[in-house]
Amino acid sequence: MPLWEIFAPESAFTEEDKEQLSTAITDACVAFADIPRFYVGVRFEVTPANTMYVGGKAADNFVRVVVDTIARQLDTREIRAACMDATEMVLAPFVKDRGFDWEVHFDEIPMDLWRIQGLVPPPAYSGTEKLWARENRAIPYEVSAT
Amino acid sequence: MPLWEIFAPESAFTEEDKEQLSTAITDACVAFADIPRFYVGVRFEVTPANTMYVGGKAADNFVRVVVDTIARQLDTREIRAACMDATEMVLAPFVKDRGFDWEVHFDEIPMDLWRIQGLVPPPAYSGTEKLWARENRAIPYEVSAT
Amino acid sequence: MPLWEIFAPESAFTEEDKEQLSTAITDACVAFADIPRFYVGVRFEVTPANTMYVGGKAADNFVRVVVDTIARQLDTREIRAACMDATEMVLAPFVKDRGFDWEVHFDEIPMDLWRIQGLVPPPAYSGTEKLWARENRAIPYEVSAT
Repeated sequence: MPLWEIFAPESAFTEEDKEQLSTAITDACVAFADIPRFYVGVRFEVTPANTMYVGGKAADNFVRVVVDTIARQLDTREIRAACMDATEMVLAPFVKDRGFDWEVHFDEIPMDLWRIQGLVPPPAYSGTEKLWARENRAIPYEVSAT
Repeated sequence: MPLWEIFAPESAFTEEDKEQLSTAITDACVAFADIPRFYVGVRFEVTPANTMYVGGKAADNFVRVVVDTIARQLDTREIRAACMDATEMVLAPFVKDRGFDWEVHFDEIPMDLWRIQGLVPPPAYSGTEKLWARENRAIPYEVSAT
Repeated sequence: MPLWEIFAPESAFTEEDKEQLSTAITDACVAFADIPRFYVGVRFEVTPANTMYVGGKAADNFVRVVVDTIARQLDTREIRAACMDATEMVLAPFVKDRGFDWEVHFDEIPMDLWRIQGLVPPPAYSGTEKLWARENRAIPYEVSAT
């Protein structure tokens, strides 16, 4: 579903941290939205010193998270707030609890401008999506005309 | 029109590949949407090992493509599907046929929050746009009040 | 409010340039939208040679600016044009006047999918937002039920 981009200083996360955080994000997305695990992408980008500024000042203790969410519509105010709460919970041990400053935002991507392995992802909660989730990979299927 | 961002392992593309792929993308965008060639931007970003995760696992054989599309509205379901089909066709020789995993999504950018060389890009299919296409550069012109 | 991402060749900006440009962007955003200074994030990313292509050709003299705007709605055509004009004014001394080619676009992010330091940013122009601006930091407050 989503592509998470995590911009952080090089010292912020070890290899093990990155694997744990991306696993925690994946677990949270699956719990929240019941999507296949492989829908969740996480990209870490190191922000060298003096490349990230907040309010005009170098912010070298800052983690910026930008998420493109695709596979599920965040339809109601309650779901949107819950999504942001879940995000904060999953980030906290890696960011807040380690003394970083941080900021997060989500952008919403139209579902019909998205492909995985060249395939149109199946409709949310469909049998095919459940199969993809179970197999944890994109499997060719017959796209319905409707 | 669009900004294509292509996140891929360092080994994925040679200098020659990058030029060929960005040319193929440009050709496809021009054929699809009849826009000036210089509207098409492509940025390649190397994803070092252990910076891209899919489903919580390091995905070091993965190409992630994110496109911000601007100059044309993708108005109908048919055009949107055709846009994604064209995208897959242009990527296939560089991605699928080389054995990479891959995923693509497009985001839609409002046309009025976009400038090239400080200029408001002319209306789609206008005479000025055709001039820009012919000259393959942004040329100052009188922006109509309407 | 906004996250500015500035993709430029390594030679484009010194450390001092980056601080000055991010300060100029912050000043402009505060003047334009009356937001707290720390809402303005600017991330510089170096584009190595042969990673940025325009119209299928390597564009090694090119500055690409992508802004995600969040804290204020750009409601009217006039405000949207004024926003882009202000952007060009702030960039000109660092980009146009130095002989770079450049292109800019803004994407609009829904305000309710955004958190700073884990907090829901207060409503635009509210007393709490003014307090955040004065203190130049996120301060916990009681989020109203409405």
